Amino acid sequence: MTRQSILLKSRPNGAPRPANFELVEQPMPLPGEAEVLLRTIYLSLDPYMRGRISGRASYAAPIEEGGDMMGETVGEVLASNDPKFEPGDLAVGAYGWATHIVWPAARLTKLTPGAAPLSTYLGVLGMPGVTAYSAMKDIGQVKPGETVVISAASGAVGSVAGQLAKRAGAKIIGIAGGTEKCIFVQEGLGFDACIDHRAGNLETELDINCSTGIDVYFENVGGALQRAVYPRLNTFGRMIMCGMVAQYNATEPESGPNLMQVVAKRLRIEGLIVSDKPERFAEWRALAAPWVKDGSLRYREDIVDGLDRAVPAFIGLLEGKNFGKLLVRVGPEAI
Amino acid sequence: MTRQSILLKSRPNGAPRPANFELVEQPMPLPGEAEVLLRTIYLSLDPYMRGRISGRASYAAPIEEGGDMMGETVGEVLASNDPKFEPGDLAVGAYGWATHIVWPAARLTKLTPGAAPLSTYLGVLGMPGVTAYSAMKDIGQVKPGETVVISAASGAVGSVAGQLAKRAGAKIIGIAGGTEKCIFVQEGLGFDACIDHRAGNLETELDINCSTGIDVYFENVGGALQRAVYPRLNTFGRMIMCGMVAQYNATEPESGPNLMQVVAKRLRIEGLIVSDKPERFAEWRALAAPWVKDGSLRYREDIVDGLDRAVPAFIGLLEGKNFGKLLVRVGPEAI
Repeated sequence: MTRQSILLKSRPNGAPRPANFELVEQPMPLPGEAEVLLRTIYLSLDPYMRGRISGRASYAAPIEEGGDMMGETVGEVLASNDPKFEPGDLAVGAYGWATHIVWPAARLTKLTPGAAPLSTYLGVLGMPGVTAYSAMKDIGQVKPGETVVISAASGAVGSVAGQLAKRAGAKIIGIAGGTEKCIFVQEGLGFDACIDHRAGNLETELDINCSTGIDVYFENVGGALQRAVYPRLNTFGRMIMCGMVAQYNATEPESGPNLMQVVAKRLRIEGLIVSDKPERFAEWRALAAPWVKDGSLRYREDIVDGLDRAVPAFIGLLEGKNFGKLLVRVGPEAI
Repeated sequence: MTRQSILLKSRPNGAPRPANFELVEQPMPLPGEAEVLLRTIYLSLDPYMRGRISGRASYAAPIEEGGDMMGETVGEVLASNDPKFEPGDLAVGAYGWATHIVWPAARLTKLTPGAAPLSTYLGVLGMPGVTAYSAMKDIGQVKPGETVVISAASGAVGSVAGQLAKRAGAKIIGIAGGTEKCIFVQEGLGFDACIDHRAGNLETELDINCSTGIDVYFENVGGALQRAVYPRLNTFGRMIMCGMVAQYNATEPESGPNLMQVVAKRLRIEGLIVSDKPERFAEWRALAAPWVKDGSLRYREDIVDGLDRAVPAFIGLLEGKNFGKLLVRVGPEAI
């Protein structure tokens, strides 16, 4: 028996290329004390991973050259040296781009079979969903009647953030890349409107759709979107800084907006990383699982099959090529 | 009897010049119903006034060409058509660059003679002091052991902000322009250190004096100071945006920092205008008047004599030429 895993072979300069990664095969490891062996079912691919392989200071701990690529996964326990798990149990945790892994039982969350689709624990009920929930609860604090702009609105985080703002009584304008995504955001997710930033009329569309200005901007993109939204923020506006994927492949950071408007309009620009408030995970699962079940919280997944597809899928993610939460189905849900 | 006042003759392009202003003489006005006539004793000159005369969107309502220059003053009531005031009363309010003015009684605060030096109601106990107090209470929330950097540290706002952070148990590093100001900040105000930004070694001095990074930056200056401090902010750092005087005379706004660090470090960048929380004024006067009396809250005033000196003093303020809270003594305290 062997396991396959993907290593970071060399750090990318600019956009990652397939040659920066390597798929390797090793003998199957055995679990030590208080550890379990899992086979991976789903692997989550997320934009923050670009920061981990950059070698630059980032909020995520760097992955060394030659080291394993890390990522959230859902898996099935094959062998356990811990009383909390037995073979056949399902678990979610952050354990990597691999078909199998040995992992400490204490760092896994056991899942109840059938409570929700397994893949949702990596998306709408998982880290991206919790990110959106914490962003809105801890920073956005949206009030009824406010106008909220959500970048990367069809994505795993933006789609939940927008639906939460809608539940709070706000007017929700999404920004996404391409007609197909915009139709999904408006009709599938129920946003009031969605602007296609590739259509070349972003500023005009913002003026039309946000005629009373913008109260909250959920920032996941940066670049031209940030430059267009920032001057349209209202007094006491909030800018939730969740990511700036448009510049993750940039070799030099671009300059930002002049901050005098922060004084003039008493803006609040605040950053967020989901792991700062671990208590939000259980809170969110309890709150949102019924919404997933009754269909009132919508989500879309973009699933590719096979670990060998992880690298091209990740490269595409940074170019906005995925449509919905990007997952790799590494193995079948049941054997 | 006549009154003198200063008008905005034309909008400055870049640094204001004397020709942008005009001193005019008019017949003495009479108070209408619920109004009083005051003679001005002290006029406050503050950096925010640059925004009012720019014609650009700013947080302060613009002054029209040909309109009266506005500003906080302390004055003596000469005639009153309101039961709350009688001749001889002292009052503080926002009424302008003029020797005399007629003003609604409802928009004046009566002062208790002898409770504090009259000039302090425009400085340490007035708008600049309240600005510092609100900044620290509502945004800074300084914890013991944190490192706080204060720009314009010898100024009316910075000097109070630093002393409040010191009372909260933080290490306080000031930034000021010139040796004389730095000596005052360190020895006169009790900051732990003060860096002379004109000495050309700002970044090195920040590294030396803030060896564990910067938790709170009180921003009143912008430009090179902001560029030096921003990358040195710690995780969960706060940047209190109070002003950016270094660019008030600029014809084009300079670009700001790349905001990805706001995500990575979960920074909070938040703007503040003192008038948003009017309740802080009375709170601060009650809290700080005893500190002024017992000498534990230090302040420095830079007083010029005569309304005709207001324009050159204001031009100098924007160049950092004043040293302490800049006031014009328009008339004597007692006649």
